[in-house]
Amino acid sequence: MNTVLRGTGKEITIGSGRPFVIIGEKINPTGNKKLAAALSAGDFEYVSLLASRQAAWGADVLDVNVGVPGMDEPAVIKRVIAQIGSVSDLPLSIDSSDAKVLTAGLEAAPGKPLINSVNGDLRRLDEVLPLAKARGAAVIGLAMDEAGVPATPEGRLGIAERILAHAARVGLPAEDVIIDPLVLTVGSDSQAALVTLQAIELIKRELEVNINLGVSNVSFGLPERPNLNQAFLILAIQAGATCAIADPMKLGYAARAAEVLLARDAHALRYIKYFRAAEARRAQEEQTLASSAGEQRR
Amino acid sequence: MNTVLRGTGKEITIGSGRPFVIIGEKINPTGNKKLAAALSAGDFEYVSLLASRQAAWGADVLDVNVGVPGMDEPAVIKRVIAQIGSVSDLPLSIDSSDAKVLTAGLEAAPGKPLINSVNGDLRRLDEVLPLAKARGAAVIGLAMDEAGVPATPEGRLGIAERILAHAARVGLPAEDVIIDPLVLTVGSDSQAALVTLQAIELIKRELEVNINLGVSNVSFGLPERPNLNQAFLILAIQAGATCAIADPMKLGYAARAAEVLLARDAHALRYIKYFRAAEARRAQEEQTLASSAGEQRR
Repeated sequence: MNTVLRGTGKEITIGSGRPFVIIGEKINPTGNKKLAAALSAGDFEYVSLLASRQAAWGADVLDVNVGVPGMDEPAVIKRVIAQIGSVSDLPLSIDSSDAKVLTAGLEAAPGKPLINSVNGDLRRLDEVLPLAKARGAAVIGLAMDEAGVPATPEGRLGIAERILAHAARVGLPAEDVIIDPLVLTVGSDSQAALVTLQAIELIKRELEVNINLGVSNVSFGLPERPNLNQAFLILAIQAGATCAIADPMKLGYAARAAEVLLARDAHALRYIKYFRAAEARRAQEEQTLASSAGEQRR
Repeated sequence: MNTVLRGTGKEITIGSGRPFVIIGEKINPTGNKKLAAALSAGDFEYVSLLASRQAAWGADVLDVNVGVPGMDEPAVIKRVIAQIGSVSDLPLSIDSSDAKVLTAGLEAAPGKPLINSVNGDLRRLDEVLPLAKARGAAVIGLAMDEAGVPATPEGRLGIAERILAHAARVGLPAEDVIIDPLVLTVGSDSQAALVTLQAIELIKRELEVNINLGVSNVSFGLPERPNLNQAFLILAIQAGATCAIADPMKLGYAARAAEVLLARDAHALRYIKYFRAAEARRAQEEQTLASSAGEQRR
């Protein structure tokens, strides 16, 4: 089953026979004080930098979250989306738990965006799925509800089925629902990653939908987290995940490497293309650093 | 099935319920001109450095290869093994295609060493397996013969069966044979890694032996090889590999991360222990660099 997203430029197709899709997670003020301060001050240059840097490092879609307490989020998300559009033609993922912010973001977003996210909570489904249908957007459905994240793969499959049933009821096709089976942190539950890998396989087999993962939660509280995040992404791709919300600068190589090894990237063409883009980006960033150092010396 | 190796210190057990074992590959002059020159000059200090550095970065076994053209390899391997013994108590893997070098290495090695390697070639089996039996050593059996590496997982299983049959004939127990299903480079054959992953699963299921991999061949000719090597190691561990010949500095984290995610490292204890040792090692190396820079300034 293929999920198609569109920005102002080329179409992105998420699907099992397709390249793994990375949804760049960096436009999110949670844990990024610099972005939070910039958004509060009405300074959107940093948003441009985050958008173009993620695109250069291989992001296929850009997640947009403007959750700063006390801010007029519907107004800010429109401004942020306009700013992203000035430097990137990628599809957007509108990331909010507030329906007013989602509505504003969906209105401002070009093409066919993604909504991040609904879950199995009925009030949330009733609120968000009609928005997706009306806008012609796709949606990420998290395999949890008001009772939390089920401990078993079967429990998460059950919530995925509930989300798809509600989507069908409002006329949103199954290919526009991407299920996220969620991962808890292995630091507090040794079985956490394994359960998620099993949930990916089960949901994929039973429902044939696209599978998304927020990768970095798995390593919370442990040192040298990129090692765990990369390994988890690789295992998740093998299990059947088709997209991930992630930092493309840290996880781009892992995704491309997994595809090469699983014979999903003939002649390693995408891997080599990623390498060349990364090298070009690195050279450019070094030049920027060198020239700003030069200015400081003057 | 458990394969036990011994150095002068603690015993190392390779097996499915056990921590993944890394056989440090760095004591090998092929592609290391500095080591080749040092060995030719009779300077063994660099061997000590390679041994202690690999041990500090998590190697469980040390591979010893002294293949420099024109050198008296049997004499050199004895000297190298004595040198390693002065800084490390780890088990050794005696790595040569020359029976005279193997014999000398097995004589000099402490405890219970590993032989790297035999393959399905009958002359090689008849030459090496009796050496292993006589010395009480374990042996790596490569899934190839004089006709090359079979293209299919089934073909590699067939050679593994042949090696085990010959081992049984000389009285070498199956637990002392570690099968290496081999990997060709994905750069020239897109199916190469996938075939090896399938071969690991097949050989593991049918023969229940330990499985070794020489990881780095998979990425030959491609850029940023550690990304591919790490990803391949992670997928191989999931498929059932129990040890690898690898650079512990580059692949240690990937192995420990895979174990955490596959619920084979409760509370991430080994991962955290690896992190602490790596940090300590890094601090020590920085101190060494700083003090040698200090000496140069004097």
